[in-house]
Amino acid sequence: MTSSPLHIAVVGGGIGGLAAALAMARSGHRVTVVERAARFGEIGAGLQLAPNASLALEELGVLDAVRRSAVAPPQLVMMDALTGKQITALDLRGDAYRSRFKHPYLVTHRTDLHGALLAAGEEHPSITLHTGRTVTDAVQTPAEVRLHFAETSERLAADAVVAADGLHSRLRQILVDDGAPVCSKYVAYRGALPVTSMTGSMAQHATTESVIVWAGPRMHLVQYPVRRGELYNQVAVFESDHYDPDSDDWGTEAELEERFAGSCDAVRDALPLVARDRRWPLFDRLPITDWVHGRIVLLGDAAHPMLQYLAQGACQALEDAVALGRALRDHDRPEDAFASYAALRTERAASIQTNARRFGEICHLDGMGAFLRNQLLADRTPEDFDDIAWVWTPAGDRRPAPTP
Amino acid sequence: MTSSPLHIAVVGGGIGGLAAALAMARSGHRVTVVERAARFGEIGAGLQLAPNASLALEELGVLDAVRRSAVAPPQLVMMDALTGKQITALDLRGDAYRSRFKHPYLVTHRTDLHGALLAAGEEHPSITLHTGRTVTDAVQTPAEVRLHFAETSERLAADAVVAADGLHSRLRQILVDDGAPVCSKYVAYRGALPVTSMTGSMAQHATTESVIVWAGPRMHLVQYPVRRGELYNQVAVFESDHYDPDSDDWGTEAELEERFAGSCDAVRDALPLVARDRRWPLFDRLPITDWVHGRIVLLGDAAHPMLQYLAQGACQALEDAVALGRALRDHDRPEDAFASYAALRTERAASIQTNARRFGEICHLDGMGAFLRNQLLADRTPEDFDDIAWVWTPAGDRRPAPTP
Repeated sequence: MTSSPLHIAVVGGGIGGLAAALAMARSGHRVTVVERAARFGEIGAGLQLAPNASLALEELGVLDAVRRSAVAPPQLVMMDALTGKQITALDLRGDAYRSRFKHPYLVTHRTDLHGALLAAGEEHPSITLHTGRTVTDAVQTPAEVRLHFAETSERLAADAVVAADGLHSRLRQILVDDGAPVCSKYVAYRGALPVTSMTGSMAQHATTESVIVWAGPRMHLVQYPVRRGELYNQVAVFESDHYDPDSDDWGTEAELEERFAGSCDAVRDALPLVARDRRWPLFDRLPITDWVHGRIVLLGDAAHPMLQYLAQGACQALEDAVALGRALRDHDRPEDAFASYAALRTERAASIQTNARRFGEICHLDGMGAFLRNQLLADRTPEDFDDIAWVWTPAGDRRPAPTP
Repeated sequence: MTSSPLHIAVVGGGIGGLAAALAMARSGHRVTVVERAARFGEIGAGLQLAPNASLALEELGVLDAVRRSAVAPPQLVMMDALTGKQITALDLRGDAYRSRFKHPYLVTHRTDLHGALLAAGEEHPSITLHTGRTVTDAVQTPAEVRLHFAETSERLAADAVVAADGLHSRLRQILVDDGAPVCSKYVAYRGALPVTSMTGSMAQHATTESVIVWAGPRMHLVQYPVRRGELYNQVAVFESDHYDPDSDDWGTEAELEERFAGSCDAVRDALPLVARDRRWPLFDRLPITDWVHGRIVLLGDAAHPMLQYLAQGACQALEDAVALGRALRDHDRPEDAFASYAALRTERAASIQTNARRFGEICHLDGMGAFLRNQLLADRTPEDFDDIAWVWTPAGDRRPAPTP
């Protein structure tokens, strides 16, 4: 570590913010996390942790804690939502996987991952956590940054600031000003239910440990167990024909039912057990490279909001956190550390953002396009990681994905 | 041949009707062809003759005549209409082609093919040709069929009737009554222009002897030379967003320009030289198996109208003609001959109809679907005929195409 510890403020106490706080504290710095909500927490659905994420969690010292409640699925299976037939699968526990990736593929409840990071943050003596602090402005001088809040006229002064304030980042708005997030016209309905509450075919199905992605025309359903198999997580995603940027009356439950009506029995049986309490419009942004603005740096969804089709949103935030922690160990001045962090992260995050969109298109193909996709994937073996390895490898094989 | 020659009336003097007349006359029967138009003829665009068609022409004794004006393209090339890059190609003159198919792949002007068949029909002593005869009804007795005409109260009595009256077949309407043809909402603009009339990049391009298919989103352009290379044939096809079954005001030239606007330079350069004098809405029908109705049998488009995406419409009519001629050589009673013909032909024609639709879908893919198609075809060699051989082989390898 460098000679003089910094005081760094983190805006946002979600997965990315807490991971960054932990990484920076472990590099010897003093960290204050400010969260706008009244309590720290995550809203309830599952999360996939590819090996790049579990490697990051190991570096943050929380992998064992996360593993205690996570599930290690044996396979990632892509099924055709219309025919009910398997399209392809990846073995996540075999020798080929282990020798290539070293770290486990896990699925967990967002709350469980967030809880593990929060517990580690609370325990760490150099981390201070504040809730009920909504940042309204960040004023930089050559020597520091002062954060302004909606709730109090008190300012928070820090040597540097990490903006981990998510998709609708206030700091990105101030610093980058690239407009609103881009809505994909897709919505998700998601949630995890107790396996014990399930009956009939779903009760049996929910004992399956694999991650199952049912791919269909402009829709898909993802299923996997979380929390030691006690909860079964389901995410139903579809494109709405009634998208209206000025209204919430699109992507409704009625549309959900309609879009999934032609699915195979297994998908239709699962649909009544998909959580309906909230609809999640799905957003991303085009990649940017200017993550650093003086003593302020963007991280996680504030830096690279992405569609969820590669299941890399949280994984990339964790990669960010580790990279930022390392940069702040190797460099004295926050500007130098941030530049080093951005140099390592922007291109990779941009690739993932771009390819998440593409993978969504592949997943949501219809008719002949879906048929060709299935043909193209038919010859894959479950040990063939060549197309996905660059996503699951934080540094190393950075073979860019093919460009349509 | 059998003991007693029949008198067979052919309704329709297009390619299928004339080929059938020739085949039956060569089997020893007396044939009367009745054509509604004032003169025999074909409307002007090109036509591809795959080896199944050139084999049929050889059996009809007109292959040499057709070859005199046809072009034998070295390749069938599929290009991406947006990027201008080659997707795949088939060698049509190499050793692999010749050893597998034996007969040439030719492209010709419809008028030239029709002219060769007409000349052979006019020369044949057992064939009588009548124009200006529009069939309105066909009345069967146990011994004969009587055709009624719009132009005269005279009837034509025959032992049997071949309905080769095309897509809008009057006889199919009477016998099968399966409604109107199915419009695909696609239209074609097509025609062949003198190469000498072309200037600039098109003048040079029109010396290319290969068949070139530019595949794009919901559109494509086909190009090849005909008539010894003197004419260059172009067919521009696209899906209209304004289809209206009760109007001709859709698939307009303005839509043509709009749909092709995003194409590569080569396609946009070609577009002004696509014939615009007439738009051709593209129709087919679902396959049927009841081609035989007593002493009347369906042939060509009247039996199996298909979309043009496999370029098999005329080829299948020629296969019909040869099969019908053989059946009428091998069987005494027309009913038996027709049953034998239908047994040989209905399943194969149905496959081609169905797969022509599919091939259109493949050709017209957009975005990720097109990208996957190009990926899937990238590894093909020009000597690999495995996917198309069943189409180009009248009997033999009948491997059905994959089903989406």
